[in-house]
Amino acid sequence: MKWIDIRSDTVTVPGEEMRRVMASAEVGDDVYGDDPTVNRLEEMSADILKKEAALFVPSGTFGNQLSILTHTLRGDEVIIPASNHIIVHEAGASAVIAGVQMRTLDCDDGKPSAERIRSAIRSEDLHYPRTGLICLENAHSSGRILPMNYIREIYELASAQKVPLHLDGARIFNAAIAEGVSPAEIASCSDSVMFCLSKGLGAPIGSMLVGKREFIAKARKGRKIMGGAMRQAGIIAAAGVFALERMIDRLQIDHDNAKYLAEGLSKLPKIEVFFDRLDINMVFFRITGKASSKFIVETLHDKGIKINPPEAGEWRFVTNLNVTREDLDIVLEEFEGALTRTLAS
Amino acid sequence: MKWIDIRSDTVTVPGEEMRRVMASAEVGDDVYGDDPTVNRLEEMSADILKKEAALFVPSGTFGNQLSILTHTLRGDEVIIPASNHIIVHEAGASAVIAGVQMRTLDCDDGKPSAERIRSAIRSEDLHYPRTGLICLENAHSSGRILPMNYIREIYELASAQKVPLHLDGARIFNAAIAEGVSPAEIASCSDSVMFCLSKGLGAPIGSMLVGKREFIAKARKGRKIMGGAMRQAGIIAAAGVFALERMIDRLQIDHDNAKYLAEGLSKLPKIEVFFDRLDINMVFFRITGKASSKFIVETLHDKGIKINPPEAGEWRFVTNLNVTREDLDIVLEEFEGALTRTLAS
Amino acid sequence: MKWIDIRSDTVTVPGEEMRRVMASAEVGDDVYGDDPTVNRLEEMSADILKKEAALFVPSGTFGNQLSILTHTLRGDEVIIPASNHIIVHEAGASAVIAGVQMRTLDCDDGKPSAERIRSAIRSEDLHYPRTGLICLENAHSSGRILPMNYIREIYELASAQKVPLHLDGARIFNAAIAEGVSPAEIASCSDSVMFCLSKGLGAPIGSMLVGKREFIAKARKGRKIMGGAMRQAGIIAAAGVFALERMIDRLQIDHDNAKYLAEGLSKLPKIEVFFDRLDINMVFFRITGKASSKFIVETLHDKGIKINPPEAGEWRFVTNLNVTREDLDIVLEEFEGALTRTLAS
Amino acid sequence: MKWIDIRSDTVTVPGEEMRRVMASAEVGDDVYGDDPTVNRLEEMSADILKKEAALFVPSGTFGNQLSILTHTLRGDEVIIPASNHIIVHEAGASAVIAGVQMRTLDCDDGKPSAERIRSAIRSEDLHYPRTGLICLENAHSSGRILPMNYIREIYELASAQKVPLHLDGARIFNAAIAEGVSPAEIASCSDSVMFCLSKGLGAPIGSMLVGKREFIAKARKGRKIMGGAMRQAGIIAAAGVFALERMIDRLQIDHDNAKYLAEGLSKLPKIEVFFDRLDINMVFFRITGKASSKFIVETLHDKGIKINPPEAGEWRFVTNLNVTREDLDIVLEEFEGALTRTLAS
Repeated sequence: MKWIDIRSDTVTVPGEEMRRVMASAEVGDDVYGDDPTVNRLEEMSADILKKEAALFVPSGTFGNQLSILTHTLRGDEVIIPASNHIIVHEAGASAVIAGVQMRTLDCDDGKPSAERIRSAIRSEDLHYPRTGLICLENAHSSGRILPMNYIREIYELASAQKVPLHLDGARIFNAAIAEGVSPAEIASCSDSVMFCLSKGLGAPIGSMLVGKREFIAKARKGRKIMGGAMRQAGIIAAAGVFALERMIDRLQIDHDNAKYLAEGLSKLPKIEVFFDRLDINMVFFRITGKASSKFIVETLHDKGIKINPPEAGEWRFVTNLNVTREDLDIVLEEFEGALTRTLAS
Repeated sequence: MKWIDIRSDTVTVPGEEMRRVMASAEVGDDVYGDDPTVNRLEEMSADILKKEAALFVPSGTFGNQLSILTHTLRGDEVIIPASNHIIVHEAGASAVIAGVQMRTLDCDDGKPSAERIRSAIRSEDLHYPRTGLICLENAHSSGRILPMNYIREIYELASAQKVPLHLDGARIFNAAIAEGVSPAEIASCSDSVMFCLSKGLGAPIGSMLVGKREFIAKARKGRKIMGGAMRQAGIIAAAGVFALERMIDRLQIDHDNAKYLAEGLSKLPKIEVFFDRLDINMVFFRITGKASSKFIVETLHDKGIKINPPEAGEWRFVTNLNVTREDLDIVLEEFEGALTRTLAS
Repeated sequence: MKWIDIRSDTVTVPGEEMRRVMASAEVGDDVYGDDPTVNRLEEMSADILKKEAALFVPSGTFGNQLSILTHTLRGDEVIIPASNHIIVHEAGASAVIAGVQMRTLDCDDGKPSAERIRSAIRSEDLHYPRTGLICLENAHSSGRILPMNYIREIYELASAQKVPLHLDGARIFNAAIAEGVSPAEIASCSDSVMFCLSKGLGAPIGSMLVGKREFIAKARKGRKIMGGAMRQAGIIAAAGVFALERMIDRLQIDHDNAKYLAEGLSKLPKIEVFFDRLDINMVFFRITGKASSKFIVETLHDKGIKINPPEAGEWRFVTNLNVTREDLDIVLEEFEGALTRTLAS
Repeated sequence: MKWIDIRSDTVTVPGEEMRRVMASAEVGDDVYGDDPTVNRLEEMSADILKKEAALFVPSGTFGNQLSILTHTLRGDEVIIPASNHIIVHEAGASAVIAGVQMRTLDCDDGKPSAERIRSAIRSEDLHYPRTGLICLENAHSSGRILPMNYIREIYELASAQKVPLHLDGARIFNAAIAEGVSPAEIASCSDSVMFCLSKGLGAPIGSMLVGKREFIAKARKGRKIMGGAMRQAGIIAAAGVFALERMIDRLQIDHDNAKYLAEGLSKLPKIEVFFDRLDINMVFFRITGKASSKFIVETLHDKGIKINPPEAGEWRFVTNLNVTREDLDIVLEEFEGALTRTLAS
């Protein structure tokens, strides 16, 4: 049975060609710096974002937390929108690993005003932690991109205050395509970027941390502390190389599909689609009537469709490389069926 | 020269009588549990707040951070208004010592709605830190008290979700007087309370952490880890005992004086007093014209008056036991003089 | 050019067959628990060691540190031989991640007496950290195995004191073969075991943490905190499955080769081989004459042989699945040549 | 009832004169740097040890842990004898607060050879924590002093390797007297020193951390993080000033008394006094016959004498300023009585 899985873009499975490049990858012991495929992936990643160096890490959470550990000193404070992945979905790691205080700014769209950020930066005082880092996320997991002029403004502000800026760019390629700019242009407004090979790009495992040479050298030691130094990582790095070469441009398809799906959903009864958060491959919506989430999830599951239950009343469908427009028609049809039945009951 | 010091209520110096009780205190080695005066202070503190047990600690910051360390497990998340002392003035200690993530709620008055707190409490999920604690502060350092019905609502919510609630009650006695309730009534809406002997109560050193017997036993170990176990602490505990016996009721005088000072200030040109934050012994105000803070601070200093420069444009004057109404008249006169001159220049 | 690499058993590269199983692995999103190959690897791992459950992690260091994080509470103390990998080669991670104090016992062979361990276990006292864990390593990275009666004695002691025991079993299969017992028999003397798929077993990436069901469930959350939750990890887990099925028995060859290499080396001039540490696939030796390590390493490198320079005067050669007996003859010949020249100079 | 308390030198209670100076101390808010008595104590402390600056802290544990926090970066390793107070009696704080790995060297006398320390210092390597600090303790809590030539050798070694050295000098004045050198001479072989006012010197509360100006400035911030910044600390600092002026020279009396007590004990049946550890005010001994510790402790308690039960079979009696030679005669008499009865039973 072929599943249609729109729970996330993390769920994609590698296709034939990607598997072939993995199987034939030249590898070595990356802890010794001997893996040519990892080395190539790191160089490519730095090149694409026009940064000096890059480091391969096991996951996006790993890359973000490693970046925080590398930028900060224990006891620092990090300014970050409360709705960012680092706060919401990374299990509170920053206090455990880096020992830093998160100053979470309430803000659903990931874009706190420059004024709010400026006033959150601490001056020198015995009572204050040092502001050690600002974190942004682009594309933001609410489905929005951060406009270039916004991140430019924040980066200028941060630089003027000598506070580094880390970009959680798990979906930076989605953001770049949606914004119509190069990924490097987005990355230029940050001191470090983490991006994922395993989301829209379709690689099975891994993320990249990118930044200045000295920063990456320090991060390499931090990666060892966090247990993320791997051996013949070239096997999976090969999929990363393939993804960077072949999978970036096709993200436009996922975005178009998301819009198609959103249109379809918006025509269903009692559905409110959040069109203002439809920048990338994620469709967010609410059911305004009385419906059983459990019934919908299970009914679709029985039809071969995997969806997540809503979080705080909000549903999220994510298009990805394993989902075709035909699949979306099936989703729309089955979802309408389940919805109609639960609304009626 | 006798200074008039309205920078804070932490600046008070002990008077003759308090010094006498310290000098004659019966003491022992408190690490061995042998100090009768410390033991008495701990019992009194527990009694006053109608909790099971109490622990003497070197400072308010120490007591708050020890409470966080004791309530939580490493990796937990703590829900707390961003304007609370624990976030603003404790040097980012929670991530260093307890290893917990602070989920700061933006909120100037320290009273985020029950709905906001409820939605910040995490459910069980691999991606989420466990919500390990909620922290409130009463009186809040913005000068306001938290209404009884508010803290009751939050405590019920917290208890229903099995999340403990710690109250930073550095100024709980000010709050109780302002609210017209007993300190125990406020404390009843929390699992632990830290209160300071060294602020309005006028003792030179020390704070108390109060809570259930088992909690305090665990905190005693944490106090050792944090280096706060002291030897013949009875010397300073004696001042605490004296303060609890003699200094609580007189806080009303400080509150009245603050209102008097506020009235006086509000009559000066270009002064906006925040009367909505005048619940206790703190007067907050802004200068709406163009004035040199530095000039004002220095001019008053030359006249024997210590004030702090404004923070984020906001001035804070604090009445305390070393400041009489006559002193306030002098403050008003000299402040008017300095203000007039800087506004004119 | 085909390299002969005897720096470690971590350097092996996967062969054709292993690559084939990776390329054809059935995968899913392991963070959702959807990856059938990872699930199978975890079941197999638990079965082989006769424990309840297992968890796939990116590296041996990750597995050890995750185990420490999972067993302990912040502030605990861990008793461990100072010569263990966790102390020597894991970048001081335990204090950073778990926040525990390592009580390192000086002991070159990884076998501190039961009496030393017993006396290091703390009683209940305000001044003492709680003893939260004992760590052993088998085979020990000094090249020795721990005798069954030793680890049984320590485990009984630990259990009697209610202190859990974690076994760093990076090379547990080497130990089992050398000892002539099943891996499960070794594992039975521990509460948790970490073993590596990427050392002697030849898989490119990954290690397993094995223990009770509840322990592994808790470790799964810790893995998220540490950033080690991966997506379509089945690609590399497939190599792990293959390794467990096919590569354990052949470790005997590496052991035999190590003895062969040791014999050969011992016949060379000014070479002292440590035959008492020749239990597995590692040969340790000293050059008793005046020789240039740099010259030897570089000369062999020019001949296509990779060796590490000595640590603290001690050389370590490691046999592995990519090294044949013919390769060892070449090593012996080239090493003799280089040695003779440097001794003569 | 007047107790004779020889459990420790921490148990002394301040006399009339010391109480008088506390009662009349000039004080201010030390968090604002306004307390003249604290400032004077800090200057005196720095002067006595010929260091640049000093900081008042609530306890010896606080001072040691603050020093570790200040010298190191998270993830560093600290080389330290396993028998030192920091390891044995500080509740595992270093991993919690500073996040550093303790490399404990087994060594009963606190004097690991230079060679052992040298070989424990790490070189630069991805797998290694950085060696961030070496800790020694003088006088050592085993009752011994560290010879000047030893600490000079270790300090030269440390300095050559650019590793700072912290001296736990809780009893540095005892050491100086026993060694016949100035405290400054001992302190000159270290980058920082913690010493206690509350042990032999008889002050009720507090310790000093002493070192370079920049180090102390950084420690001041760390003291805030750890909650050790106190307000009108001059009350207790006054006792510290008094102690430094008046109580150092009299430590010779305690040393002489310890020798007197040791002589007396050694004449009792079945008593083995460790004369090789009789450098300061501590007498260690064993009972070689079958005796009930509990009986002895309780019997003496009934006679008004407080002693601690033995640790690991070893008894420790500590002379101090509240114990006269006449008191020791009573101790000897009552101890002999109890001992004789328990040996006979």
